[in-house]
Amino acid sequence: MQNSVTQQPKYNIGFSSDNIAGASAEVINAIVECNTGTASPYGTDNYTAQVEEKLRQIFETDLSVFIVPTGSAANALCLATLTPPWGAVLCHPDSHINNDECGAPEFFTNGAKLIEVAGQSSKIDPLLLQQEALNKVGDVHSVQPSVVSITQATETGSIYNLDEIKKIGDICRNSGLRLHMDGARFANALVSLDCSAAEMTWKAGVDALSFGATKNGVLAAEVIVLFDKSLAQEMAYRRKRAGHLLSKMRLLSSQINAYLSDDLWLNNARHANQMALRLEEGLTAIEGVELQSKTEANIIFCKLPLVVITGLLEQGFHFYHDRWGQNVIRLVTNFTSQPEEIDLFLQAARTLMASKHKS
Amino acid sequence: MQNSVTQQPKYNIGFSSDNIAGASAEVINAIVECNTGTASPYGTDNYTAQVEEKLRQIFETDLSVFIVPTGSAANALCLATLTPPWGAVLCHPDSHINNDECGAPEFFTNGAKLIEVAGQSSKIDPLLLQQEALNKVGDVHSVQPSVVSITQATETGSIYNLDEIKKIGDICRNSGLRLHMDGARFANALVSLDCSAAEMTWKAGVDALSFGATKNGVLAAEVIVLFDKSLAQEMAYRRKRAGHLLSKMRLLSSQINAYLSDDLWLNNARHANQMALRLEEGLTAIEGVELQSKTEANIIFCKLPLVVITGLLEQGFHFYHDRWGQNVIRLVTNFTSQPEEIDLFLQAARTLMASKHKS
Amino acid sequence: MQNSVTQQPKYNIGFSSDNIAGASAEVINAIVECNTGTASPYGTDNYTAQVEEKLRQIFETDLSVFIVPTGSAANALCLATLTPPWGAVLCHPDSHINNDECGAPEFFTNGAKLIEVAGQSSKIDPLLLQQEALNKVGDVHSVQPSVVSITQATETGSIYNLDEIKKIGDICRNSGLRLHMDGARFANALVSLDCSAAEMTWKAGVDALSFGATKNGVLAAEVIVLFDKSLAQEMAYRRKRAGHLLSKMRLLSSQINAYLSDDLWLNNARHANQMALRLEEGLTAIEGVELQSKTEANIIFCKLPLVVITGLLEQGFHFYHDRWGQNVIRLVTNFTSQPEEIDLFLQAARTLMASKHKS
Amino acid sequence: MQNSVTQQPKYNIGFSSDNIAGASAEVINAIVECNTGTASPYGTDNYTAQVEEKLRQIFETDLSVFIVPTGSAANALCLATLTPPWGAVLCHPDSHINNDECGAPEFFTNGAKLIEVAGQSSKIDPLLLQQEALNKVGDVHSVQPSVVSITQATETGSIYNLDEIKKIGDICRNSGLRLHMDGARFANALVSLDCSAAEMTWKAGVDALSFGATKNGVLAAEVIVLFDKSLAQEMAYRRKRAGHLLSKMRLLSSQINAYLSDDLWLNNARHANQMALRLEEGLTAIEGVELQSKTEANIIFCKLPLVVITGLLEQGFHFYHDRWGQNVIRLVTNFTSQPEEIDLFLQAARTLMASKHKS
Repeated sequence: MQNSVTQQPKYNIGFSSDNIAGASAEVINAIVECNTGTASPYGTDNYTAQVEEKLRQIFETDLSVFIVPTGSAANALCLATLTPPWGAVLCHPDSHINNDECGAPEFFTNGAKLIEVAGQSSKIDPLLLQQEALNKVGDVHSVQPSVVSITQATETGSIYNLDEIKKIGDICRNSGLRLHMDGARFANALVSLDCSAAEMTWKAGVDALSFGATKNGVLAAEVIVLFDKSLAQEMAYRRKRAGHLLSKMRLLSSQINAYLSDDLWLNNARHANQMALRLEEGLTAIEGVELQSKTEANIIFCKLPLVVITGLLEQGFHFYHDRWGQNVIRLVTNFTSQPEEIDLFLQAARTLMASKHKS
Repeated sequence: MQNSVTQQPKYNIGFSSDNIAGASAEVINAIVECNTGTASPYGTDNYTAQVEEKLRQIFETDLSVFIVPTGSAANALCLATLTPPWGAVLCHPDSHINNDECGAPEFFTNGAKLIEVAGQSSKIDPLLLQQEALNKVGDVHSVQPSVVSITQATETGSIYNLDEIKKIGDICRNSGLRLHMDGARFANALVSLDCSAAEMTWKAGVDALSFGATKNGVLAAEVIVLFDKSLAQEMAYRRKRAGHLLSKMRLLSSQINAYLSDDLWLNNARHANQMALRLEEGLTAIEGVELQSKTEANIIFCKLPLVVITGLLEQGFHFYHDRWGQNVIRLVTNFTSQPEEIDLFLQAARTLMASKHKS
Repeated sequence: MQNSVTQQPKYNIGFSSDNIAGASAEVINAIVECNTGTASPYGTDNYTAQVEEKLRQIFETDLSVFIVPTGSAANALCLATLTPPWGAVLCHPDSHINNDECGAPEFFTNGAKLIEVAGQSSKIDPLLLQQEALNKVGDVHSVQPSVVSITQATETGSIYNLDEIKKIGDICRNSGLRLHMDGARFANALVSLDCSAAEMTWKAGVDALSFGATKNGVLAAEVIVLFDKSLAQEMAYRRKRAGHLLSKMRLLSSQINAYLSDDLWLNNARHANQMALRLEEGLTAIEGVELQSKTEANIIFCKLPLVVITGLLEQGFHFYHDRWGQNVIRLVTNFTSQPEEIDLFLQAARTLMASKHKS
Repeated sequence: MQNSVTQQPKYNIGFSSDNIAGASAEVINAIVECNTGTASPYGTDNYTAQVEEKLRQIFETDLSVFIVPTGSAANALCLATLTPPWGAVLCHPDSHINNDECGAPEFFTNGAKLIEVAGQSSKIDPLLLQQEALNKVGDVHSVQPSVVSITQATETGSIYNLDEIKKIGDICRNSGLRLHMDGARFANALVSLDCSAAEMTWKAGVDALSFGATKNGVLAAEVIVLFDKSLAQEMAYRRKRAGHLLSKMRLLSSQINAYLSDDLWLNNARHANQMALRLEEGLTAIEGVELQSKTEANIIFCKLPLVVITGLLEQGFHFYHDRWGQNVIRLVTNFTSQPEEIDLFLQAARTLMASKHKS
């Protein structure tokens, strides 16, 4: 896709996604250390037990834990456990499960239907949800509302506040629906809200959580957290049957174990969010840059002149553009993003914008 | 499950499975090294490209490569790509896909039917296969023979020789069936047969291979190798849809990359096999031990008096027993098994057997 | 659901759906006659052969025929044969497959995704379709556009004209998609357009048709018509596997045979459409009645004051209301509807409306 | 498939299956009569209500009723409602669900696994069942025993006596499994055992029954009878989703209604069984005919010399042969079989056998 550029780009600085970074040093060390001696297979090892214990403390409640290698697996397994095949999964049009998993939810649920519920800033509108939650209930000709899935932080970087989650949780409880949270960027949301993990989940009505780690400091590991432990037995068979039960589970559990130790997960998220704020501040100060929304986590959308976009790309800044509207670019920071990288980007943007205005 | 033993067992030596070991040092180093800087996500990274190149050289042909975290995923994805939902998968009653994957093949194929084809030593009998391959072909009331799956080395440690694979490959070609090989212990079989990887696979008619690595030196990574590249496009969607496409694929591909370098995979397998032979030789020399078959890879089955089995377990030797007949135990060696461990086991067995004879 | 009405309603006249009527006398006679002697089972009987022959003549081409008992089965089997599980089915938000089959398409396709493509009058907008047909093609993270499904006549009684179908057929061909037509009211559309069955289907690009009969004169029988005969083998297995291959197929094929004889199917549809036009004319003449669209087949939507709706229901006219907007009612005529019934309805509506205006 | 015979066969008498006959006159009359006026769609009609009431009386208990057009649909829907996708369905190797439904059970259950449990005369051996019922329970690597399916009468015409069913029912209850009965030839078994329908089903532990009618006097209609009414809600969605909810349900329910009236179902079955006994008696008296088992319902297997088989076929007697062993033929009588037909067959067999002995 790259044209015949003879010159090397000036920089190699990535804002395309939080999955381009590797893992924190602590996580890598944990992998190295877990490789000593034999370990009991299939998640009966000590590392997994430690993860469970840590998550119980973090969430201040008893819960069931299933570690899997990807977020798509975590989401699809949660949904399959929460809806029958004739159920409807109510989700935002922007949601990852709806757009970016090649139908994994439909595969794992044996054909449940994802129904879009709109809302500002990639967040489900509770009024619309209330309506859909009651739509054709008991009508044998229609799929049946069964589970709501919200993403926290959302795919566009916005965040449900506690009241918003509670409101959705209440609708679920009142309508007999289950509530799933896709927490691919759970830590980014948590530090942004500055609340407890319990408050952001089960206390607000969440039944099952895809607790993300891959985007925030590990190489590959996500945790299915079931606050309703009655779902655990079914989940165990579903995970195995989907090929997501690793024999040498310690590869995943050691990563999560390190991730949850010494606040690494919170510190990583805090850093990524701060880098996004630094970006936002800098961009706000550049005339001609149109920020699309307030930055709440580690994702920024802004509109730039095409010539500026092209210029930035040519200099070796990586990001996606034009997927969310003409001349709109997406910038994602992560736990490895450096202030210097932010500043180089801002400086380049400023310069390109200025030269555009001159011309 | 542990009873109130006040004393620590004498040893802690594991022969229960090859999945209790960790990874080779080279593999761990590769994980550490891959963590430098950013990498392109979803398998578009350099490590994955190197794996592909190495496999092309090893198999002496063009092929398509899909790295996944587990063997169940590799098997189920291969089968799903090789059979329609109304197809029959012909496999041995002992096969892993039939017994140990909680119905993953049925899930991934959307309900294809596994049909058992018997045979000595966990190997499909070609005469019976020939019969099943033609069973009710074209009869709309019956599932249709679509794919044969063989395990190399088998679940009980036996090995198909090249002629046996070719014979099965011929039946497949003549009957319009596809041939899948579950190579969870591929390397153990290869070094045992002392042939080329090409001879043991596509030259004998194999269309798709689950190339195992987890049991032989990596922490978690298996490779789907498609010799029929026309299957690759479908496989790509199936893998993603099953949640088996890792964003930070380098975690898996770096492991495989090291595994395939400097003959690590062959050396590990050779070592495990040699340790099994050492065990076999030792056991043969002990009166009262009944070996169940000739050792061809890294698995041994033998029959011992119950008191000896109990004695060995109490001393801290780990192995499964009584799943394959009364007083039959299974011993699995791996790339980390030490000659000293073998010898300790043999010595303990000898002593226990002798004291039994005396009593 | 019935309130404590002590009085019998004045009338019992049904406009709620075309599935409330029974079958034409010719169809019933055919069932009676088919019951003589033995018949070859599973669709190898003479009645089925005659249906095939008649459909070849009607559609002026070779084709494959699969008779099934319901329209949901016909639709879902067609879609399953036209899309892989990771495919997207592009359809109108109003479509029966999207709303009224309890996820049958998702079940039969093993989890394909229905994607809504909007458009006026329940008809897919070709410009929007063009866009969706190319959406994320080749992107492994997304389901892949695979088949377009249009309903003729639509669920709200509108009709695609030949140019509109051709335009959609062209988009399909150019984008590598297949085209399915849900023809639950195929005959109603055909007589309305006054074109040939060939023109309305394969000549315009339709690959597979759900040829409806149940709503238009038979008790239960729908025909899957495959213009692409290469799909027939797969369809045979899919139908059997779904429990839709009747052993005594003559029960279904005799009905279709009569339905296709002596233009019964066309005459029934013509009558139903004429009754709808008579209704439309009458309603147009009543001040205060707001017709929602031009009547093209046998379905009418109109808006009435609530008091008039209630009055009509109390008098024993049956119809659905308030599903498509406040005070909007749907009236469906069928092949048994009588002019006198239409006139009674119109008279009642006139009277109620007049008394409302007076009050 | 027919060779160039210039002469017409002497007879046209069918013993190939009970699905070659049409329906009883009473059933046809019921179809004709049901066609008067409008009826409420989707099984909310009066005919369906009458069927429910009659079945409650026949089975002497409350129950839920779902009428479907085929036995494969009835079986597969029952199984899907009784097992999770990771469940095992324990059934006899000879069972229809295992051999003759093209994987419908696997499709409807979303990939459950049928596990064969052997036994004499196509009947599950309770000792083997007891073993399988406990196999790997709780082991996440294995599908989980969930439901037992027995066929009454079996596919080879044998019948479980009440004690045998009770024994299986007890195993199910004690192991937490559900019990399904495939009653495609339910009436034939019932009149043969001369017991009550209640005794043969729920009193013996049956949870769900496929109550057959098509083979015994109707054109196409089978009834799912749920003795555990808590399964009804799920069944309703599953039936719709599978395309098996007919809008004009009266076509099916009127047939069943007539079938259950005035003991038609019992009389038809009694007649078919008596014709089989007449056949058996006659065959027993012919030297050289080897009956394979005692006749309990309406199916006979016997071994004849090839020349006799050929002779019978040439004279126009229809039956299947060589599927169950060399020179073994299967003869199925039905409610329309005439004593004269039986006698003609016996006479022809006697003559052919005699001339063979002479030659």
